[in-house]
Amino acid sequence: MKVGILGAGQLSQMLALAAPPRGLDVHVLGHQPQEPALQVTAQAQTLGVWEASAIANWAAKLDFVTFESEFIKADFLQTALSGSKAKIFPNLNALGILQNRLTQKAFYLQHKLPSAPFLDVRSLSDLDRAFQFFKGHFVLKLKTDGYDGKGTFHCDSAAELAQLKNSFGKFPQGFIAESKVKFKRELSAMCFRSRAGDFKAYPLVESRQVENRCDLVLGPVSHPAWPKMLKQMNKALAAIDYVGAIGVELFDLGTKLWINEVAPRVHNSGHYSQNAMNFDQFTLHWLCALQDQLPELQMNSKAFGMANLIGAGRTQSSWEALGNCHLHWYNKTENRAGRKMGHLNATGKNKKEVEKNLISERKKFSI
Amino acid sequence: MKVGILGAGQLSQMLALAAPPRGLDVHVLGHQPQEPALQVTAQAQTLGVWEASAIANWAAKLDFVTFESEFIKADFLQTALSGSKAKIFPNLNALGILQNRLTQKAFYLQHKLPSAPFLDVRSLSDLDRAFQFFKGHFVLKLKTDGYDGKGTFHCDSAAELAQLKNSFGKFPQGFIAESKVKFKRELSAMCFRSRAGDFKAYPLVESRQVENRCDLVLGPVSHPAWPKMLKQMNKALAAIDYVGAIGVELFDLGTKLWINEVAPRVHNSGHYSQNAMNFDQFTLHWLCALQDQLPELQMNSKAFGMANLIGAGRTQSSWEALGNCHLHWYNKTENRAGRKMGHLNATGKNKKEVEKNLISERKKFSI
Repeated sequence: MKVGILGAGQLSQMLALAAPPRGLDVHVLGHQPQEPALQVTAQAQTLGVWEASAIANWAAKLDFVTFESEFIKADFLQTALSGSKAKIFPNLNALGILQNRLTQKAFYLQHKLPSAPFLDVRSLSDLDRAFQFFKGHFVLKLKTDGYDGKGTFHCDSAAELAQLKNSFGKFPQGFIAESKVKFKRELSAMCFRSRAGDFKAYPLVESRQVENRCDLVLGPVSHPAWPKMLKQMNKALAAIDYVGAIGVELFDLGTKLWINEVAPRVHNSGHYSQNAMNFDQFTLHWLCALQDQLPELQMNSKAFGMANLIGAGRTQSSWEALGNCHLHWYNKTENRAGRKMGHLNATGKNKKEVEKNLISERKKFSI
Repeated sequence: MKVGILGAGQLSQMLALAAPPRGLDVHVLGHQPQEPALQVTAQAQTLGVWEASAIANWAAKLDFVTFESEFIKADFLQTALSGSKAKIFPNLNALGILQNRLTQKAFYLQHKLPSAPFLDVRSLSDLDRAFQFFKGHFVLKLKTDGYDGKGTFHCDSAAELAQLKNSFGKFPQGFIAESKVKFKRELSAMCFRSRAGDFKAYPLVESRQVENRCDLVLGPVSHPAWPKMLKQMNKALAAIDYVGAIGVELFDLGTKLWINEVAPRVHNSGHYSQNAMNFDQFTLHWLCALQDQLPELQMNSKAFGMANLIGAGRTQSSWEALGNCHLHWYNKTENRAGRKMGHLNATGKNKKEVEKNLISERKKFSI
């Protein structure tokens, strides 16, 4: 079985490493020869610009195609792959809905998945309307291509509103405006849906952010509203015939739980699974496409965690010998401040112990 | 850090897959482009014949070199790599001792590791001497290059002795003769020794053979003589400054435990570790070279097992959807009857449950 991954970053690398043990011949399409996933397969290809015809040629020999990022436009891929016999998962209709914050929000509403109130913002007058509606305090989020806080703007005053108006024209894709959410903590969970509709989920985890970027994940945690939301998520994904892994980011409001956003792919907050779950998210993503039924998911330990290794921009990365934790280094040739360079996984008897271990092990890195 | 693996079969493939997460740039040297490990790295090279100068060129850019098979002659590697700055692990002196059954047996004697009585057999008269010494019943084993029962001959009668004498000249490397061991079962364990002498071991497991080939591994098991033997093994490996994984095959004689043989590399009987241990044997083999201290080793479940997937010679391999087990397929292009094509790992509450699961899952394969 020949499978292809569009994109060659760390998510693609970890998907590619999980493929051969399942009998999959993995082909990766990247942009630059030094990208992480291109180092772990003999079937690596690069294209400086991804033109539709070149993607079609690349996919011609493949049985399945998946992607590591939701930023490739679904309608572009539809054009590129319309003549291909390769099965694309998740399907491009689902990708189209979920890669745009407005249609993603509409999807939540339709399937009774609670999330923050929002308004569509297409014009300067929509911005004024949002300012009034949210009583002067709201978050403006780019409809597409935003991640790790990029493309997110806070508005808390008339002066900030004026600033936003000034730069509004730079963003033709438009925004949604969302109420500011006072949450206790951020949670997340990975869900998986097979080609025949088998639905499984990992435990809920706490996801701590630093500078709008995932810093630490600890689990498992529980929340009274989660079981019901999981049922709704199952129905919602069935409605769009979703196949594959999906990352669900949540706001814990105490008794309530709101969806922050979903990512139609393997997700940073699920990386702990490589060492803490019986089946890791990368293997499960492939199994969703290959099998009707998914295996039973179990934790390998009582508690677990993941700490991201964020670049500080050093030219050479180094680290001291590690203890009882698991390194997953992405082998990026270029370090930049704020860039995700790798992560550490750990397991333990309780979350406190795991957190302490991860924080202490992370100090060994100079990156 | 650039690391190299000599050999490109399944052991090399699994070593190569474990390398990138540890920040290792893995180079593999094989013979034919379709070999398993050459599919999982961008740094693949093939040489139809491994000449010393070509190996020296291949190793010139590497920091570490390891091998997947003990059949590459240590003195040849010594010549090939004498000018290389790459650290070879395990070291070639240790490889030389362990790749020859006679020096391996002498090593056991020297370090008080119990094993079956043996005689060196270099000539036809040595064969007669063995026949008398072992009272007409013994096993003749090739000193080098024997595996999975290949190179092993049983002698139980004067007629068989005559046959062995007839074919004796075909084997210039000579033999050892060993007493026939009446064992209850075969056990095995993986040991690991770091560059600074930190010594760790996996649990003891039962290894069931079919047609002289490992068929099923179940664990953990215990044996009263194991803790003492483990201490001796630690001393023995320290004496030859062994670095890396080593597979120890054992005969369970009831109260006693004898070593059958050791393999200076990752080993089939340790494959379960990919899903059943917190650190798998392939990662640990690299860590032995990279770190002074090894992590604490723990089981992910109460019981675990591994079932080999042995080829029956079909031209196309296929399998039905799997349940709660883990597939590790080697992606060999050519199937042959008796060839190891992959393995299944499973975990569970007890060995019975694991065994039942593995045997039932294995029936789904047509290979």
